[in-house]
Amino acid sequence: MRITALAGGVGGARFVRGLLHHLSGTRPGERPEVTVIGNTGDDITLFGLRVCPDLDTLLYTLGGGVHDGQGWGRADESHLVIAELAALGATPMWFSLGDKDFATHIYRSQLLGHGMPLSAVTARLAGRWGLGEQGVTLLPMTDTPVETHVVVTEDGQQRAIHFQEWWVRHQAALEAERFVVAGLDAATPAPGVLEAIRSADVVLLPPSNPVVSIGIILGVPGVRDALRGTRAPVVGVSPLVGGRPVRGHADVCLRTIGVDTTSEAVAGLYADFLDGWLVDPEDPMPETARSSGPALVRRPLLMSSVEAAAEIAASALELAQRLGTASGGGEVRP
Amino acid sequence: MRITALAGGVGGARFVRGLLHHLSGTRPGERPEVTVIGNTGDDITLFGLRVCPDLDTLLYTLGGGVHDGQGWGRADESHLVIAELAALGATPMWFSLGDKDFATHIYRSQLLGHGMPLSAVTARLAGRWGLGEQGVTLLPMTDTPVETHVVVTEDGQQRAIHFQEWWVRHQAALEAERFVVAGLDAATPAPGVLEAIRSADVVLLPPSNPVVSIGIILGVPGVRDALRGTRAPVVGVSPLVGGRPVRGHADVCLRTIGVDTTSEAVAGLYADFLDGWLVDPEDPMPETARSSGPALVRRPLLMSSVEAAAEIAASALELAQRLGTASGGGEVRP
Repeated sequence: MRITALAGGVGGARFVRGLLHHLSGTRPGERPEVTVIGNTGDDITLFGLRVCPDLDTLLYTLGGGVHDGQGWGRADESHLVIAELAALGATPMWFSLGDKDFATHIYRSQLLGHGMPLSAVTARLAGRWGLGEQGVTLLPMTDTPVETHVVVTEDGQQRAIHFQEWWVRHQAALEAERFVVAGLDAATPAPGVLEAIRSADVVLLPPSNPVVSIGIILGVPGVRDALRGTRAPVVGVSPLVGGRPVRGHADVCLRTIGVDTTSEAVAGLYADFLDGWLVDPEDPMPETARSSGPALVRRPLLMSSVEAAAEIAASALELAQRLGTASGGGEVRP
Repeated sequence: MRITALAGGVGGARFVRGLLHHLSGTRPGERPEVTVIGNTGDDITLFGLRVCPDLDTLLYTLGGGVHDGQGWGRADESHLVIAELAALGATPMWFSLGDKDFATHIYRSQLLGHGMPLSAVTARLAGRWGLGEQGVTLLPMTDTPVETHVVVTEDGQQRAIHFQEWWVRHQAALEAERFVVAGLDAATPAPGVLEAIRSADVVLLPPSNPVVSIGIILGVPGVRDALRGTRAPVVGVSPLVGGRPVRGHADVCLRTIGVDTTSEAVAGLYADFLDGWLVDPEDPMPETARSSGPALVRRPLLMSSVEAAAEIAASALELAQRLGTASGGGEVRP
């Protein structure tokens, strides 16, 4: 069995960690292969080093090295390098980078500097974190450098800033006009990305940001077509609990692209390929949406622990299995 | 008054620190300007980052941030970055880099990557360490990347390895055939280097390694001619105490270039421009060398403390003054 998931940062990583926890009970030899396609749209070059926040959050979370409290970065981290860079007058200082974390960026930048594609670099990093031993392959969505910029208005002037500056420094509080993903049009899916979607038995959309995480992956030419064309049921998990994003600023992102912050509207962004959709028990998404939309399952979606995330992942797999069986593995719409 | 010193790493840095300590007693307004021309021949790129060991040792030592016990690197240092790089499988691991130290290399590499010349980068770093406030200008000998390689014989096979690999990893114990300084022939002195020698009132040669530190600086086209042509007395401090280098492997380096490990032989390397020479009290250098060689002063040369180094520097300045007065500032040979 092959499971493919599209993932952003914290939410995606916690969902996949839950999925792996659920799958760890599988009998040896029957354990599904999991391929995670990570967003690289919020990658940024800081101090001359290439930082891939979503890939790193996936690596650290799945590898057991994440700072659980904050959801990103390394546990037991110190901050001597960044303090010394501040003393040297280096900028910017609004993006927190710990010492262990710096090593990841130094190593990645060195290998990229040698001409190694990001997917090969990511495979090396995945080796350090034992992802292979867990049956996981982590792929960046593309080897092409892409960067999400946000067009903001300040004092009546429009200017484009890097997504991370908007997200981290300004906490998404600067009025955003639109997102511009530099390089996305010309990006090609990283080796294995389209095949992982086409040959999957199940495709999962974790509760990642539908605009700046999943939305960016969907923008890589070929990915959306692969999702439309795959025989696998595609099951998503709404990022909204109680009508709000659990963390992050998905509501602001959705508003920026003119979409309501509702599970129904988010499902609408995936309408051309979404077969199943997990929403929170109190979600106002109408049952009548079933007739034309994805199969709905209501269940608690708060990933308050690894176990809670595992149960959500199990529900998603269960729904996928039901949809797959119902359609005989071909047409999966119920 | 303008003092110019050529310096390698630990020995040069400790001597210049002593010089500054001595000069700190000078009345305000009369304090000499000190220009230090640092060796960059043992620079190395590690993990994609440009490391300048001698410049860094000078910066940290003169700025009060050095690890005094080891003579290089930062005080109160930790080593999380290198430990994580080791976990990632990065190499080499024989060159110790602390976390604070990494920040220097990250910042330097970022600025070099933006096209800033090493001399401008070094000026930035010098700002962080307050060198200007001490009347010190630190110049790399050249902005041209140069690297000292060592041709070694192992198992009957000759191969060239980076100087740092020979020095740090093998502790100079691998039989060296010769040194090859890649890029040195085509190097140009960094802005200000030749002028600092030509316009100096005193030129000092600290007890740095005569082969792989001072010797490399002398190899930058134009530097040796500037030393021959300067009106300033040139006074050197022998790196040998009791007939041996105080630290490092100057004896091995001298043997490699076919020169005896004696103060007389080292002075011979500088014969075309050296006016004064400080040697240890027991140094076997014959007094008869005075007639044709530099003016000799015998005094203890062990830099066992900042104060001891200051007294050695004071002796060197005193000798320079005597030589300058004797010659009326023009011809300085006594």
